[in-house]
Amino acid sequence: MFNIAVAQSGGPTAAINSSLSGVFSGASSCRDIDGIYGAINGIEGAINGNFIDLTKILTSEYDIDLLKKTPSTILGSCRYKLKDYREDSSDYEKISANFRDHDIKAFFYIGGNDSMDTVMKLDAYFKETGIDIKVIGVPKTIDNDVMNTDHTPGFGSAAKYVAATMQEIIRDSRVYSIPSVTIVEIMGRDAGWLTASSCVLRANGEPAPHLIYLPEAPFSTDKFLEDIKEAQTRYKAVIAAVSEGISCENRQTGFSSELTDAFGHKFLSGVGKYLENVTAANIGCKVRSIELNVMQRCSSHIASLTDINEAAQIGSAAVEAAMNGESGKMMVFRRISNNPYRVEILSSDIKSIANKEKKFPTEWISKDENNVTTDALNYFLPLIQGEVHPEYRNGIPVHFRLDQ
Amino acid sequence: MFNIAVAQSGGPTAAINSSLSGVFSGASSCRDIDGIYGAINGIEGAINGNFIDLTKILTSEYDIDLLKKTPSTILGSCRYKLKDYREDSSDYEKISANFRDHDIKAFFYIGGNDSMDTVMKLDAYFKETGIDIKVIGVPKTIDNDVMNTDHTPGFGSAAKYVAATMQEIIRDSRVYSIPSVTIVEIMGRDAGWLTASSCVLRANGEPAPHLIYLPEAPFSTDKFLEDIKEAQTRYKAVIAAVSEGISCENRQTGFSSELTDAFGHKFLSGVGKYLENVTAANIGCKVRSIELNVMQRCSSHIASLTDINEAAQIGSAAVEAAMNGESGKMMVFRRISNNPYRVEILSSDIKSIANKEKKFPTEWISKDENNVTTDALNYFLPLIQGEVHPEYRNGIPVHFRLDQ
Repeated sequence: MFNIAVAQSGGPTAAINSSLSGVFSGASSCRDIDGIYGAINGIEGAINGNFIDLTKILTSEYDIDLLKKTPSTILGSCRYKLKDYREDSSDYEKISANFRDHDIKAFFYIGGNDSMDTVMKLDAYFKETGIDIKVIGVPKTIDNDVMNTDHTPGFGSAAKYVAATMQEIIRDSRVYSIPSVTIVEIMGRDAGWLTASSCVLRANGEPAPHLIYLPEAPFSTDKFLEDIKEAQTRYKAVIAAVSEGISCENRQTGFSSELTDAFGHKFLSGVGKYLENVTAANIGCKVRSIELNVMQRCSSHIASLTDINEAAQIGSAAVEAAMNGESGKMMVFRRISNNPYRVEILSSDIKSIANKEKKFPTEWISKDENNVTTDALNYFLPLIQGEVHPEYRNGIPVHFRLDQ
Repeated sequence: MFNIAVAQSGGPTAAINSSLSGVFSGASSCRDIDGIYGAINGIEGAINGNFIDLTKILTSEYDIDLLKKTPSTILGSCRYKLKDYREDSSDYEKISANFRDHDIKAFFYIGGNDSMDTVMKLDAYFKETGIDIKVIGVPKTIDNDVMNTDHTPGFGSAAKYVAATMQEIIRDSRVYSIPSVTIVEIMGRDAGWLTASSCVLRANGEPAPHLIYLPEAPFSTDKFLEDIKEAQTRYKAVIAAVSEGISCENRQTGFSSELTDAFGHKFLSGVGKYLENVTAANIGCKVRSIELNVMQRCSSHIASLTDINEAAQIGSAAVEAAMNGESGKMMVFRRISNNPYRVEILSSDIKSIANKEKKFPTEWISKDENNVTTDALNYFLPLIQGEVHPEYRNGIPVHFRLDQ
């Protein structure tokens, strides 16, 4: 009998806790595993010896079900980057000592590209120093930009939120008789997957968003204004989905407005606000920009059931892989078919994943570079299927909570 | 047999279409009423003779149920202000002619404070000129600032969205080990009802939002910074709910533009962003501001069942009132008890409602002027109860749609 540890890293999603539940359930059903520890605030908890015993916290099926429906990370997160152990091994020694003290023989790290760097380095250190601790990565990110996997847990729920919200914004934008432009800024610093996913509304015959701009395509403000004017010949209320990461020529200036506060600080704003101002100044109609902000990564109340279930499955599969002796791997989805939607879970070498980014395919971007193709729609659609019904208490969804 | 007309005015909510369904159902069950016309874009449609025959559009119980779950206004809206008919009666003459041509004997206007100005003026004109057309107002606004009614349809759904989203933001804000401040900007130009409603999370033991700022209390940036610092001694991740309409001393320098709408309202933007900048400059921790934007008024996917049902009931009650000979009235809710929650629907003289605003009670604001009392919690809680389950197609909520 031995113990395992699990931690969560990077930005929140609606599915990270579901992956945690999957690791927990997978470990619970494994007769060789005794204690299941959660490291608080990702690898920082492993370095500082800050663990909690999850078997004392998740004591019923109800707890596990509630955990799956709770957004963000109950164990906390971090953005801590391990140094190269050949230059400074102090963190590694602390982790090793803490794992030894807790008899931890396998470590599961739920995170994105950057977190997989931690998996890669830790595995390399353990192998180099002859310590038999398995290290397995479990992918998560709403950005969907992790290599070697068809998609990442967390993305489907974010895409479902974006689709439902975009549709409500479309209804809202059409109420007045005057022409209008609505610019919706969507997360994705370097990859446009989430912005592109707003095309799913087409499956229900909704032509909006009429324009979609991704970091993977060149962007110019002049072309944007031309596109808006052209769309206005066809639609009274034009909707544009814009990735926060588009390569706008003014990006270097931080989209700072000319406004300053009482302290003389310039106001910085996102690309949506910048394009709102440019459109208002050049086209002169009613213009609004909307930033979906953190809501798009934590809206568990409209999570994708497919996503939440897959997140748990890939967490359990990670435990199975470690028990089979694998280490230095990240679990991945391979899509077998779109319709019916079928995936299998495999493991993939962490060295081909860590610190890399999977971009949105340029062949799925329309010729005009302001929309996406039907191939993209067919890719996205299965990922947002099914609803997770929250439990409500006093009219408010119930979350699993460790802290105040 | 005669016909009636109904129109929708002002800003969208998740419940306006439910009130439309209530007027439709009420009229459908009335043997004296034949045609049920919808005027497109509010009173503009009545002026221009732009009507659609709702009996041809709402042809099944399914249609009516879907309409109740669809946000915004299927008939479109307007912000058109009628002139005093003693100065310029041209609009009134057009409306009268169009109503006569369509044999319309009663007109129902779903809207807020400003829209009730239209109800008042139109009723006065009809009475003055001896035209027997009943005019009844049906309240709606997420601002909840309409006189003489306990609350307004649309508010409960907006409050439920704010509560669910605020809770998800709270989860999101707590992931890192470093201290942080999150400022959530909530709609309400002159009344703080919706911002105050975020206190409902307390019913489930959630202490956040830790600070609540309303237009009804004095506001100073210095006091705000003091409050944040004090809250940071107790909470790692401080959450402040801030009304867009707080009287911030720096508002003139660019947080309100000089633009005004037809009613003379200033366009507001950016109080949250302003406070984010000030907090970052003065406290120096991680700060984020989040604007809930139009999502808070159109998020039908998490509407309050109480709200949606009441919106339909008050629409039907308006038809009943007109059939009983009433005119120049707005329908109102009178709360009989909080627990069990019971309301009755009455009518109230439009002259005591139009162009007035019901402020959040100052006695429900805490002594420190940065929070609300338990009386406020008890008032809000019944309004967010119950869930409306959307129909999903391809993983996306289905909306009733007239146009593209």
